[in-house]
Amino acid sequence: MDVYIALVHFPVRNKHGEEVATAVTNLDIHDLARTARTYGVAGYSIVTPVSHQQALVERIVKHWVEGEGITYNPLRSEAFKRVDVQPDVESVIESIEKRTGERPLTIVTGAQLQENCIGYEALRNRVKTHDGACLILFGTGWGLSDKWIEGCDYRLPGINAAGPENKYNHLSVRAAVAIILDRLLGQRDLES
Amino acid sequence: MDVYIALVHFPVRNKHGEEVATAVTNLDIHDLARTARTYGVAGYSIVTPVSHQQALVERIVKHWVEGEGITYNPLRSEAFKRVDVQPDVESVIESIEKRTGERPLTIVTGAQLQENCIGYEALRNRVKTHDGACLILFGTGWGLSDKWIEGCDYRLPGINAAGPENKYNHLSVRAAVAIILDRLLGQRDLES
Repeated sequence: MDVYIALVHFPVRNKHGEEVATAVTNLDIHDLARTARTYGVAGYSIVTPVSHQQALVERIVKHWVEGEGITYNPLRSEAFKRVDVQPDVESVIESIEKRTGERPLTIVTGAQLQENCIGYEALRNRVKTHDGACLILFGTGWGLSDKWIEGCDYRLPGINAAGPENKYNHLSVRAAVAIILDRLLGQRDLES
Repeated sequence: MDVYIALVHFPVRNKHGEEVATAVTNLDIHDLARTARTYGVAGYSIVTPVSHQQALVERIVKHWVEGEGITYNPLRSEAFKRVDVQPDVESVIESIEKRTGERPLTIVTGAQLQENCIGYEALRNRVKTHDGACLILFGTGWGLSDKWIEGCDYRLPGINAAGPENKYNHLSVRAAVAIILDRLLGQRDLES
């Protein structure tokens, strides 16, 4: 199985529940690229319909893949080779389909998801035994819009963290992506 | 058990292996505070001997705990209540000792650690059954200096991520802290 991830800036919700496009942040590009490469993720797409934000991402990626970034920090450069920018989630799916020959399994994540979810262990096994590609969607802002919450093959519950006695759950997307990739793809200790 | 974490800016190494003090970054304060609070961590210390950096951290913490941050984002404010700044690791240990009555177990982490390490599952069990406090040290730059690599009770191996076939391991400290806290403290699925 090949796993792909996408960081979605539209359609997402703001804190009032309204559908908005959020701004791309440079650090999300870097952190998620490094995490994705460390976990052997096949591709990381940054999704935004805003053309000047697309151009910004392309300029940053180019700096690291073709520009001075190569010699400044070759490891960072390596991480950026698997980053692209897409105008919407449909285009991410199509590009994976074009590359692998079939539509990827789609998985949606969100801090507030609880109902009709697959467990982390069950999805870990599903991903491991799936022949084709999987695409995991991460929302920015206050999470993905209903269209993608409803429209994916699987939904993962919010990270339960310290258990039911601690209701606080406000991870950065940088932390959430790291934890979810580790739960789904991370190597386990031999003794576990 | 109470778990504490510290983000250490001195003594750490730079990419040439020299001992240096790194600069505090605002986003590390935010991301680690949110992750720590989500996992029920009792305290998060930012360690720097540089007085103007200490003052910077104190100003940021004050904004969120006493200032406009309280109303702007109460959840962020909540995360900052457990953040403090300390001049060195010894002071972090002493402050925990003062609070809990005994010296914490100390645990060091580092991307390059492999030898004489405890496994994640074994440390998870150790932490869970330990009556007193534990302190986990995270280095910035190219990792903690030997003084603390050698001087802690336990050392955790670098995050093995996708297994031996993928040697790439260059997570941000924001991602590494999230993954390590989830491995040690995270709630597991019922089915696992």
